[in-house]
Amino acid sequence: LKLLIKVAYLGTNYCGYQVQPNGVTVQQQLNLAARALFGCECDIVGCSRTDSGVHARAFSATVAEKGKNCLRSTVPVERVPRAMNVHLPFDIAVTSAAWVEDDFHARYDVISKEYEYLIYNAPVRDPFWQDRAWHVPEPIGEAALSSMQEAAAAFVGKQDFAAFCAAGSDVADTVRTVLSTKVERRGDMISFRVRADGFLYNMVRIMTGTLLEVGRGRLSTDDVKEAIISRDRRRAGKTAPACGLYLDRVFYE
Amino acid sequence: LKLLIKVAYLGTNYCGYQVQPNGVTVQQQLNLAARALFGCECDIVGCSRTDSGVHARAFSATVAEKGKNCLRSTVPVERVPRAMNVHLPFDIAVTSAAWVEDDFHARYDVISKEYEYLIYNAPVRDPFWQDRAWHVPEPIGEAALSSMQEAAAAFVGKQDFAAFCAAGSDVADTVRTVLSTKVERRGDMISFRVRADGFLYNMVRIMTGTLLEVGRGRLSTDDVKEAIISRDRRRAGKTAPACGLYLDRVFYE
Repeated sequence: LKLLIKVAYLGTNYCGYQVQPNGVTVQQQLNLAARALFGCECDIVGCSRTDSGVHARAFSATVAEKGKNCLRSTVPVERVPRAMNVHLPFDIAVTSAAWVEDDFHARYDVISKEYEYLIYNAPVRDPFWQDRAWHVPEPIGEAALSSMQEAAAAFVGKQDFAAFCAAGSDVADTVRTVLSTKVERRGDMISFRVRADGFLYNMVRIMTGTLLEVGRGRLSTDDVKEAIISRDRRRAGKTAPACGLYLDRVFYE
Repeated sequence: LKLLIKVAYLGTNYCGYQVQPNGVTVQQQLNLAARALFGCECDIVGCSRTDSGVHARAFSATVAEKGKNCLRSTVPVERVPRAMNVHLPFDIAVTSAAWVEDDFHARYDVISKEYEYLIYNAPVRDPFWQDRAWHVPEPIGEAALSSMQEAAAAFVGKQDFAAFCAAGSDVADTVRTVLSTKVERRGDMISFRVRADGFLYNMVRIMTGTLLEVGRGRLSTDDVKEAIISRDRRRAGKTAPACGLYLDRVFYE
Protein backbone atom coordinates (compact mmCIF):
# COMPACT_ATOMS: atom_id res chain seq x y z
CA LEU A 1 0.00 0.00 0.00
CA LYS A 2 1.00 3.58 -0.52
CA LEU A 3 -0.40 6.79 0.83
CA LEU A 4 -2.70 9.07 -1.15
CA ILE A 5 -2.70 12.57 0.26
CA LYS A 6 -4.78 15.62 -0.59
CA VAL A 7 -2.85 18.84 -0.45
CA ALA A 8 -3.94 22.48 -0.42
CA TYR A 9 -1.40 25.11 -1.32
CA LEU A 10 -1.01 28.74 -2.15
CA GLY A 11 1.21 28.67 -5.23
CA THR A 12 2.52 32.24 -4.94
CA ASN A 13 5.87 31.33 -3.41
CA TYR A 14 6.54 28.26 -5.54
CA CYS A 15 7.94 27.51 -8.98
CA GLY A 16 5.00 25.21 -9.59
CA TYR A 17 4.44 21.71 -8.32
CA GLN A 18 7.12 19.62 -10.00
CA VAL A 19 10.71 19.46 -8.70
CA GLN A 20 12.98 21.72 -10.74
CA PRO A 21 16.71 22.40 -10.71
CA ASN A 22 16.10 26.10 -9.90
CA GLY A 23 13.55 27.37 -7.43
CA VAL A 24 11.55 25.82 -4.65
CA THR A 25 8.57 23.66 -5.64
CA VAL A 26 5.64 22.15 -3.78
CA GLN A 27 6.83 18.61 -4.54
CA GLN A 28 10.16 19.40 -2.93
CA GLN A 29 8.45 20.59 0.26
CA LEU A 30 6.27 17.45 0.33
CA ASN A 31 9.40 15.33 -0.14
CA LEU A 32 11.13 16.97 2.82
CA ALA A 33 8.05 16.62 5.01
CA ALA A 34 7.52 12.95 4.06
CA ARG A 35 11.14 12.14 4.78
CA ALA A 36 10.94 13.88 8.15
CA LEU A 37 7.74 12.04 9.08
CA PHE A 38 8.36 8.55 7.68
CA GLY A 39 12.10 8.45 8.19
CA CYS A 40 12.98 7.36 4.66
CA GLU A 41 13.58 8.91 1.26
CA CYS A 42 10.22 9.05 -0.52
CA ASP A 43 8.85 9.26 -4.05
CA ILE A 44 6.02 11.76 -4.31
CA VAL A 45 3.88 11.38 -7.44
CA GLY A 46 1.47 14.24 -8.10
CA CYS A 47 -1.79 14.31 -10.07
CA SER A 48 -0.56 17.06 -12.38
CA ARG A 49 2.10 19.71 -12.85
CA THR A 50 0.66 23.02 -11.80
CA ASP A 51 2.55 26.10 -13.00
CA SER A 52 4.40 28.66 -11.01
CA GLY A 53 1.95 30.79 -9.01
CA VAL A 54 -1.03 28.47 -9.55
CA HIS A 55 -2.92 27.36 -6.42
CA ALA A 56 -4.52 24.09 -5.41
CA ARG A 57 -7.38 23.39 -3.05
CA ALA A 58 -7.22 19.61 -3.38
CA PHE A 59 -4.12 18.45 -5.19
CA SER A 60 -3.62 14.67 -5.00
CA ALA A 61 -0.30 12.91 -4.59
CA THR A 62 0.98 9.52 -3.52
CA VAL A 63 3.79 8.90 -1.07
CA ALA A 64 5.89 5.73 -1.36
CA GLU A 65 9.35 4.74 -0.24
CA LYS A 66 11.92 5.76 -2.84
CA GLY A 67 12.18 3.16 -5.63
CA LYS A 68 9.32 1.10 -4.18
CA ASN A 69 5.58 1.12 -4.64
CA CYS A 70 4.72 0.98 -0.98
CA LEU A 71 5.31 2.77 2.28
CA ARG A 72 5.71 1.53 5.84
CA SER A 73 4.32 3.94 8.38
CA THR A 74 3.94 3.74 12.13
CA VAL A 75 1.78 6.86 11.98
CA PRO A 76 -1.96 6.04 11.94
CA VAL A 77 -3.35 7.27 8.63
CA GLU A 78 -5.84 9.65 10.26
CA ARG A 79 -2.94 11.40 11.97
CA VAL A 80 -0.88 11.82 8.81
CA PRO A 81 -2.28 15.24 7.76
CA ARG A 82 -1.46 16.99 11.03
CA ALA A 83 1.82 15.12 11.45
CA MET A 84 2.99 16.08 7.95
CA ASN A 85 1.81 19.66 8.34
CA VAL A 86 4.22 20.12 11.22
CA HIS A 87 7.00 19.74 8.65
CA LEU A 88 5.39 21.85 5.92
CA PRO A 89 5.57 25.63 5.43
CA PHE A 90 2.47 27.76 6.18
CA ASP A 91 1.37 27.87 2.52
CA ILE A 92 1.14 24.09 2.03
CA ALA A 93 -1.10 21.75 4.03
CA VAL A 94 -2.03 18.09 3.76
CA THR A 95 -5.81 18.00 4.30
CA SER A 96 -6.47 14.25 4.20
CA ALA A 97 -4.71 10.92 3.74
CA ALA A 98 -5.78 7.39 2.82
CA TRP A 99 -4.12 4.07 1.91
CA VAL A 100 -4.31 3.01 -1.76
CA GLU A 101 -3.11 -0.07 -3.65
CA ASP A 102 0.51 -0.35 -4.80
CA ASP A 103 -0.50 -0.01 -8.45
CA PHE A 104 -2.51 3.18 -7.95
CA HIS A 105 -1.05 6.04 -9.97
CA ALA A 106 -1.80 9.60 -8.86
CA ARG A 107 -1.46 10.93 -12.40
CA TYR A 108 -2.42 8.17 -14.84
CA ASP A 109 -5.47 7.09 -12.85
CA VAL A 110 -7.05 10.54 -12.92
CA ILE A 111 -10.44 10.44 -14.67
CA SER A 112 -11.03 14.17 -14.63
CA LYS A 113 -9.93 17.36 -12.95
CA GLU A 114 -11.73 20.60 -12.22
CA TYR A 115 -10.11 24.02 -12.18
CA GLU A 116 -11.55 27.33 -11.08
CA TYR A 117 -10.29 30.63 -12.38
CA LEU A 118 -11.10 33.77 -10.36
CA ILE A 119 -11.38 37.22 -11.93
CA TYR A 120 -11.70 40.04 -9.42
CA ASN A 121 -13.87 42.51 -11.33
CA ALA A 122 -13.99 45.79 -9.42
CA PRO A 123 -12.53 49.21 -10.28
CA VAL A 124 -10.00 49.20 -7.45
CA ARG A 125 -7.69 46.34 -6.48
CA ASP A 126 -8.39 44.40 -3.27
CA PRO A 127 -5.35 43.66 -1.08
CA PHE A 128 -7.03 40.49 0.19
CA TRP A 129 -7.14 39.05 -3.34
CA GLN A 130 -3.64 40.05 -4.37
CA ASP A 131 -1.94 37.01 -5.97
CA ARG A 132 -5.22 35.09 -5.52
CA ALA A 133 -7.35 36.42 -8.38
CA TRP A 134 -6.80 38.30 -11.64
CA HIS A 135 -7.79 41.93 -11.19
CA VAL A 136 -9.80 43.16 -14.21
CA PRO A 137 -10.94 46.73 -13.45
CA GLU A 138 -13.24 47.39 -16.47
CA PRO A 139 -16.85 46.60 -15.52
CA ILE A 140 -18.23 43.36 -16.94
CA GLY A 141 -22.01 43.72 -16.97
CA GLU A 142 -24.77 41.15 -17.03
CA ALA A 143 -24.99 40.99 -20.82
CA ALA A 144 -21.23 40.52 -21.08
CA LEU A 145 -21.39 37.78 -18.46
CA SER A 146 -24.12 36.00 -20.45
CA SER A 147 -21.90 36.11 -23.53
CA MET A 148 -19.06 34.61 -21.53
CA GLN A 149 -21.37 31.85 -20.29
CA GLU A 150 -22.45 31.09 -23.85
CA ALA A 151 -18.88 31.06 -25.10
CA ALA A 152 -17.75 28.84 -22.21
CA ALA A 153 -20.38 26.30 -23.24
CA ALA A 154 -18.65 26.06 -26.62
CA PHE A 155 -15.65 24.47 -24.90
CA VAL A 156 -17.68 21.43 -23.83
CA GLY A 157 -17.15 18.21 -25.74
CA LYS A 158 -14.33 16.09 -27.17
CA GLN A 159 -12.40 18.59 -29.27
CA ASP A 160 -8.93 19.41 -30.45
CA PHE A 161 -7.76 22.22 -28.19
CA ALA A 162 -4.48 22.94 -30.00
CA ALA A 163 -5.47 26.64 -30.15
CA PHE A 164 -5.66 26.59 -26.34
CA CYS A 165 -2.21 25.17 -25.75
CA ALA A 166 0.82 27.33 -25.00
CA ALA A 167 3.74 27.19 -27.43
CA GLY A 168 6.57 25.05 -26.13
CA SER A 169 4.36 22.15 -25.19
CA ASP A 170 5.45 18.87 -26.75
CA VAL A 171 2.25 16.83 -26.40
CA ALA A 172 1.38 15.01 -29.62
CA ASP A 173 -2.32 14.64 -28.98
CA THR A 174 -4.16 17.88 -28.29
CA VAL A 175 -7.63 16.33 -28.15
CA ARG A 176 -9.30 16.63 -24.75
CA THR A 177 -12.83 16.12 -23.49
CA VAL A 178 -14.26 19.06 -21.59
CA LEU A 179 -17.05 17.72 -19.39
CA SER A 180 -18.49 20.95 -18.05
CA THR A 181 -17.93 24.69 -17.80
CA LYS A 182 -19.57 27.29 -15.62
CA VAL A 183 -19.21 31.07 -15.50
CA GLU A 184 -20.84 32.90 -12.63
CA ARG A 185 -20.56 36.13 -10.69
CA ARG A 186 -20.40 36.16 -6.89
CA GLY A 187 -20.24 39.80 -5.83
CA ASP A 188 -17.10 41.33 -7.36
CA MET A 189 -15.73 37.92 -8.31
CA ILE A 190 -16.29 36.20 -11.63
CA SER A 191 -15.63 32.48 -11.42
CA PHE A 192 -14.91 30.25 -14.42
CA ARG A 193 -15.00 26.52 -13.68
CA VAL A 194 -13.96 23.87 -16.15
CA ARG A 195 -13.83 20.11 -15.75
CA ALA A 196 -12.08 17.90 -18.30
CA ASP A 197 -10.42 14.52 -18.66
CA GLY A 198 -7.13 16.33 -19.13
CA PHE A 199 -5.68 19.75 -19.78
CA LEU A 200 -3.05 21.07 -22.16
CA TYR A 201 -0.31 23.44 -21.09
CA ASN A 202 -1.94 26.76 -19.99
CA MET A 203 -5.30 25.56 -21.35
CA VAL A 204 -7.48 27.03 -18.59
CA ARG A 205 -5.57 30.29 -18.58
CA ILE A 206 -5.94 30.68 -22.37
CA MET A 207 -9.64 29.78 -22.10
CA THR A 208 -10.03 32.47 -19.43
CA GLY A 209 -8.19 35.07 -21.52
CA THR A 210 -10.46 34.17 -24.44
CA LEU A 211 -13.62 34.43 -22.34
CA LEU A 212 -12.52 37.86 -21.15
CA GLU A 213 -12.23 38.97 -24.79
CA VAL A 214 -15.81 37.76 -25.21
CA GLY A 215 -16.84 39.74 -22.11
CA ARG A 216 -15.17 42.81 -23.59
CA GLY A 217 -17.09 42.31 -26.82
CA ARG A 218 -13.97 41.69 -28.90
CA LEU A 219 -14.78 38.05 -29.62
CA SER A 220 -18.10 36.25 -30.09
CA THR A 221 -19.08 32.67 -29.30
CA ASP A 222 -18.72 31.93 -33.02
CA ASP A 223 -15.18 33.33 -32.93
CA VAL A 224 -14.42 30.96 -30.06
CA LYS A 225 -15.85 28.00 -31.97
CA GLU A 226 -13.80 29.00 -35.01
CA ALA A 227 -10.70 29.43 -32.86
CA ILE A 228 -11.10 25.84 -31.67
CA ILE A 229 -11.55 24.54 -35.24
CA SER A 230 -8.59 26.59 -36.50
CA ARG A 231 -6.19 24.90 -34.05
CA ASP A 232 -4.37 28.25 -34.22
CA ARG A 233 -3.13 29.68 -30.90
CA ARG A 234 -3.31 33.20 -32.33
CA ARG A 235 -7.09 32.95 -32.74
CA ALA A 236 -7.61 32.47 -28.99
CA GLY A 237 -7.22 35.19 -26.33
CA LYS A 238 -4.19 36.02 -24.21
CA THR A 239 -3.06 33.74 -21.41
CA ALA A 240 -4.61 34.92 -18.14
CA PRO A 241 -2.11 35.25 -15.25
CA ALA A 242 -1.35 32.24 -13.06
CA CYS A 243 -2.49 33.88 -9.81
CA GLY A 244 -6.22 33.41 -10.52
CA LEU A 245 -6.04 29.67 -11.16
CA TYR A 246 -7.02 26.98 -8.63
CA LEU A 247 -6.87 23.23 -9.09
CA ASP A 248 -10.11 22.53 -7.31
CA ARG A 249 -10.91 18.82 -7.57
CA VAL A 250 -9.36 15.63 -8.88
CA PHE A 251 -11.52 12.63 -9.70
CA TYR A 252 -10.35 8.99 -9.60
CA GLU A 253 -12.38 5.88 -10.32
CA LEU B 1 -11.67 70.77 2.44
CA LYS B 2 -9.67 67.68 3.17
CA LEU B 3 -9.80 64.21 1.73
CA LEU B 4 -11.50 61.29 3.46
CA ILE B 5 -10.20 57.99 2.14
CA LYS B 6 -11.30 54.43 2.78
CA VAL B 7 -8.45 51.99 2.96
CA ALA B 8 -8.33 48.19 2.88
CA TYR B 9 -5.22 46.48 4.14
CA LEU B 10 -3.82 43.15 5.08
CA GLY B 11 -2.13 43.84 8.41
CA THR B 12 0.27 40.88 8.37
CA ASN B 13 3.32 42.83 7.24
CA TYR B 14 2.73 45.93 9.38
CA CYS B 15 3.37 47.00 12.95
CA GLY B 16 -0.19 48.24 13.13
CA TYR B 17 -1.67 51.42 11.73
CA GLN B 18 -0.02 54.20 13.67
CA VAL B 19 3.47 55.53 12.84
CA GLN B 20 6.08 54.05 15.18
CA PRO B 21 9.78 54.59 15.63
CA ASN B 22 10.50 50.92 14.85
CA GLY B 23 8.80 48.94 12.11
CA VAL B 24 6.76 49.85 9.07
CA THR B 25 3.16 50.93 9.64
CA VAL B 26 0.15 51.46 7.39
CA GLN B 27 0.07 55.18 8.21
CA GLN B 28 3.66 55.52 7.06
CA GLN B 29 2.81 53.91 3.70
CA LEU B 30 -0.21 56.20 3.29
CA ASN B 31 2.00 59.18 4.10
CA LEU B 32 4.51 58.25 1.42
CA ALA B 33 1.78 57.64 -1.15
CA ALA B 34 0.00 60.93 -0.35
CA ARG B 35 3.24 62.86 -0.64
CA ALA B 36 4.01 61.21 -3.96
CA LEU B 37 0.54 61.94 -5.33
CA PHE B 38 -0.16 65.43 -3.95
CA GLY B 39 3.40 66.72 -3.99
CA CYS B 40 3.45 67.97 -0.40
CA GLU B 41 4.07 66.63 3.08
CA CYS B 42 0.73 65.41 4.44
CA ASP B 43 -0.94 64.70 7.77
CA ILE B 44 -2.83 61.43 7.74
CA VAL B 45 -5.36 61.05 10.56
CA GLY B 46 -6.80 57.56 10.98
CA CYS B 47 -10.08 56.44 12.53
CA SER B 48 -8.35 54.16 15.03
CA ARG B 49 -5.07 52.50 15.90
CA THR B 50 -5.25 48.91 14.75
CA ASP B 51 -2.65 46.59 16.24
CA SER B 52 0.15 44.75 14.55
CA GLY B 53 -1.24 42.00 12.32
CA VAL B 54 -4.85 43.26 12.43
CA HIS B 55 -6.57 43.77 9.06
CA ALA B 56 -9.00 46.39 7.79
CA ARG B 57 -11.60 46.18 5.08
CA ALA B 58 -12.68 49.82 5.34
CA PHE B 59 -10.36 51.86 7.50
CA SER B 60 -11.07 55.61 7.28
CA ALA B 61 -8.45 58.33 7.26
CA THR B 62 -8.19 61.97 6.27
CA VAL B 63 -5.43 63.50 4.19
CA ALA B 64 -4.50 67.16 4.65
CA GLU B 65 -1.41 69.22 3.95
CA LYS B 66 0.99 69.01 6.88
CA GLY B 67 0.08 71.50 9.61
CA LYS B 68 -3.08 72.57 7.77
CA ASN B 69 -6.64 71.36 7.78
CA CYS B 70 -7.05 71.27 4.04
CA LEU B 71 -5.53 69.84 0.90
CA ARG B 72 -5.11 71.22 -2.60
CA SER B 73 -5.33 68.56 -5.23
CA THR B 74 -5.27 68.68 -9.00
CA VAL B 75 -6.35 65.04 -9.06
CA PRO B 76 -10.13 64.65 -9.48
CA VAL B 77 -11.47 62.97 -6.36
CA GLU B 78 -12.83 59.95 -8.23
CA ARG B 79 -9.34 59.25 -9.53
CA VAL B 80 -7.66 59.45 -6.13
CA PRO B 81 -8.03 55.74 -5.19
CA ARG B 82 -6.29 54.41 -8.29
CA ALA B 83 -3.75 57.21 -8.35
CA MET B 84 -2.80 56.62 -4.71
CA ASN B 85 -2.73 52.86 -5.16
CA VAL B 86 0.06 53.22 -7.70
CA HIS B 87 2.23 54.42 -4.82
CA LEU B 88 1.05 51.85 -2.27
CA PRO B 89 2.34 48.32 -1.68
CA PHE B 90 0.19 45.33 -2.76
CA ASP B 91 -1.26 44.81 0.72
CA ILE B 92 -2.74 48.31 1.11
CA ALA B 93 -5.33 49.87 -1.20
CA VAL B 94 -7.40 53.04 -1.13
CA THR B 95 -10.89 51.94 -2.14
CA SER B 96 -12.73 55.28 -2.22
CA ALA B 97 -12.20 58.99 -1.59
CA ALA B 98 -14.43 62.00 -0.90
CA TRP B 99 -14.03 65.64 0.15
CA VAL B 100 -15.00 66.52 3.72
CA GLU B 101 -15.08 69.78 5.68
CA ASP B 102 -11.91 71.16 7.27
CA ASP B 103 -13.21 70.47 10.78
CA PHE B 104 -14.03 66.80 10.11
CA HIS B 105 -11.99 64.51 12.35
CA ALA B 106 -11.44 60.92 11.24
CA ARG B 107 -11.13 59.70 14.82
CA TYR B 108 -13.22 61.95 17.05
CA ASP B 109 -16.18 62.06 14.67
CA VAL B 110 -16.59 58.29 14.62
CA ILE B 111 -20.03 57.29 15.93
CA SER B 112 -19.40 53.58 15.91
CA LYS B 113 -17.14 50.91 14.44
CA GLU B 114 -17.73 47.29 13.57
CA TYR B 115 -15.11 44.56 13.81
CA GLU B 116 -15.30 40.98 12.60
CA TYR B 117 -13.21 38.22 14.13
CA LEU B 118 -12.73 35.03 12.09
CA ILE B 119 -12.11 31.64 13.70
CA TYR B 120 -11.20 28.90 11.23
CA ASN B 121 -12.71 25.85 12.89
CA ALA B 122 -11.55 22.73 11.05
CA PRO B 123 -9.21 19.92 12.16
CA VAL B 124 -6.47 20.79 9.64
CA ARG B 125 -5.10 24.25 8.91
CA ASP B 126 -5.96 25.92 5.61
CA PRO B 127 -3.06 27.63 3.80
CA PHE B 128 -5.48 30.15 2.26
CA TRP B 129 -6.48 31.40 5.71
CA GLN B 130 -3.00 31.53 7.20
CA ASP B 131 -2.56 34.94 8.94
CA ARG B 132 -6.20 35.72 8.05
CA ALA B 133 -8.12 33.73 10.65
CA TRP B 134 -7.40 32.06 14.00
CA HIS B 135 -7.15 28.31 13.50
CA VAL B 136 -9.02 26.45 16.27
CA PRO B 137 -8.88 22.72 15.46
CA GLU B 138 -11.22 21.31 18.18
CA PRO B 139 -14.73 20.94 16.79
CA ILE B 140 -17.24 23.55 17.95
CA GLY B 141 -20.70 22.02 17.51
CA GLU B 142 -24.11 23.58 17.17
CA ALA B 143 -24.84 23.59 20.91
CA ALA B 144 -21.48 25.23 21.63
CA LEU B 145 -22.17 27.82 18.95
CA SER B 146 -25.54 28.61 20.54
CA SER B 147 -23.81 29.14 23.87
CA MET B 148 -21.37 31.50 22.19
CA GLN B 149 -24.25 33.42 20.62
CA GLU B 150 -25.95 33.74 24.00
CA ALA B 151 -22.75 34.88 25.69
CA ALA B 152 -22.04 37.39 22.91
CA ALA B 153 -25.45 38.95 23.55
CA ALA B 154 -24.32 39.66 27.13
CA PHE B 155 -21.77 42.14 25.75
CA VAL B 156 -24.51 44.40 24.37
CA GLY B 157 -25.25 47.61 26.25
CA LYS B 158 -23.47 50.47 27.97
CA GLN B 159 -21.12 48.68 30.35
CA ASP B 160 -17.74 48.97 31.98
CA PHE B 161 -15.47 46.70 29.94
CA ALA B 162 -12.38 47.03 32.15
CA ALA B 163 -12.18 43.22 32.27
CA PHE B 164 -11.88 43.26 28.46
CA CYS B 165 -9.03 45.70 28.27
CA ALA B 166 -5.38 44.63 27.97
CA ALA B 167 -2.99 45.63 30.73
CA GLY B 168 -0.86 48.59 29.78
CA SER B 169 -3.73 50.66 28.48
CA ASP B 170 -3.93 54.09 30.08
CA VAL B 171 -7.54 55.02 29.30
CA ALA B 172 -9.34 56.41 32.34
CA ASP B 173 -12.88 55.62 31.25
CA THR B 174 -13.49 51.97 30.39
CA VAL B 175 -17.22 52.33 29.80
CA ARG B 176 -18.25 51.61 26.21
CA THR B 177 -21.59 50.99 24.51
CA VAL B 178 -21.76 47.78 22.53
CA LEU B 179 -24.54 48.22 19.95
CA SER B 180 -24.69 44.71 18.52
CA THR B 181 -22.96 41.36 18.43
CA LYS B 182 -23.41 38.40 16.13
CA VAL B 183 -21.87 34.93 16.14
CA GLU B 184 -22.47 32.74 13.11
CA ARG B 185 -20.94 29.80 11.30
CA ARG B 186 -20.30 29.90 7.57
CA GLY B 187 -18.87 26.51 6.60
CA ASP B 188 -15.62 26.02 8.53
CA MET B 189 -15.54 29.67 9.58
CA ILE B 190 -17.02 31.07 12.77
CA SER B 191 -17.55 34.81 12.56
CA PHE B 192 -17.94 37.10 15.57
CA ARG B 193 -19.11 40.61 14.74
CA VAL B 194 -19.27 43.41 17.26
CA ARG B 195 -20.29 47.02 16.80
CA ALA B 196 -19.65 49.62 19.50
CA ASP B 197 -19.21 53.35 19.98
CA GLY B 198 -15.62 52.67 20.89
CA PHE B 199 -13.24 49.86 21.80
CA LEU B 200 -10.66 49.40 24.51
CA TYR B 201 -7.19 48.03 23.85
CA ASN B 202 -7.54 44.38 22.64
CA MET B 203 -11.25 44.43 23.55
CA VAL B 204 -12.49 42.40 20.57
CA ARG B 205 -9.66 39.90 20.86
CA ILE B 206 -10.36 39.36 24.59
CA MET B 207 -14.09 39.06 23.84
CA THR B 208 -13.28 36.43 21.20
CA GLY B 209 -11.00 34.50 23.55
CA THR B 210 -13.76 34.60 26.16
CA LEU B 211 -16.41 33.39 23.68
CA LEU B 212 -14.13 30.51 22.73
CA GLU B 213 -13.96 29.47 26.40
CA VAL B 214 -17.76 29.48 26.34
CA GLY B 215 -17.73 27.34 23.18
CA ARG B 216 -15.38 24.92 24.93
CA GLY B 217 -17.75 24.74 27.89
CA ARG B 218 -15.26 26.27 30.31
CA LEU B 219 -17.26 29.46 30.85
CA SER B 220 -21.01 30.12 30.87
CA THR B 221 -22.97 33.21 29.89
CA ASP B 222 -23.32 33.95 33.60
CA ASP B 223 -19.54 33.75 33.97
CA VAL B 224 -19.21 36.30 31.17
CA LYS B 225 -21.72 38.61 32.82
CA GLU B 226 -19.87 38.25 36.11
CA ALA B 227 -16.56 38.87 34.37
CA ILE B 228 -17.91 42.17 33.06
CA ILE B 229 -19.19 43.18 36.52
CA SER B 230 -15.92 42.14 38.19
CA ARG B 231 -13.87 44.56 36.00
CA ASP B 232 -11.14 41.94 36.48
CA ARG B 233 -9.12 41.07 33.37
CA ARG B 234 -8.34 37.63 34.85
CA ARG B 235 -12.04 36.67 34.78
CA ALA B 236 -12.20 37.01 30.98
CA GLY B 237 -10.64 34.62 28.46
CA LYS B 238 -7.27 34.81 26.73
CA THR B 239 -6.56 37.38 24.05
CA ALA B 240 -7.25 35.84 20.63
CA PRO B 241 -4.43 36.37 18.09
CA ALA B 242 -4.38 39.51 15.94
CA CYS B 243 -4.54 37.65 12.61
CA GLY B 244 -8.29 36.90 12.85
CA LEU B 245 -9.37 40.50 13.43
CA TYR B 246 -10.83 42.79 10.74
CA LEU B 247 -11.93 46.39 11.12
CA ASP B 248 -14.99 46.07 8.95
CA ARG B 249 -16.93 49.32 9.02
CA VAL B 250 -16.64 52.81 10.45
CA PHE B 251 -19.73 54.97 10.90
CA TYR B 252 -19.77 58.77 10.89
CA GLU B 253 -22.76 61.05 11.29
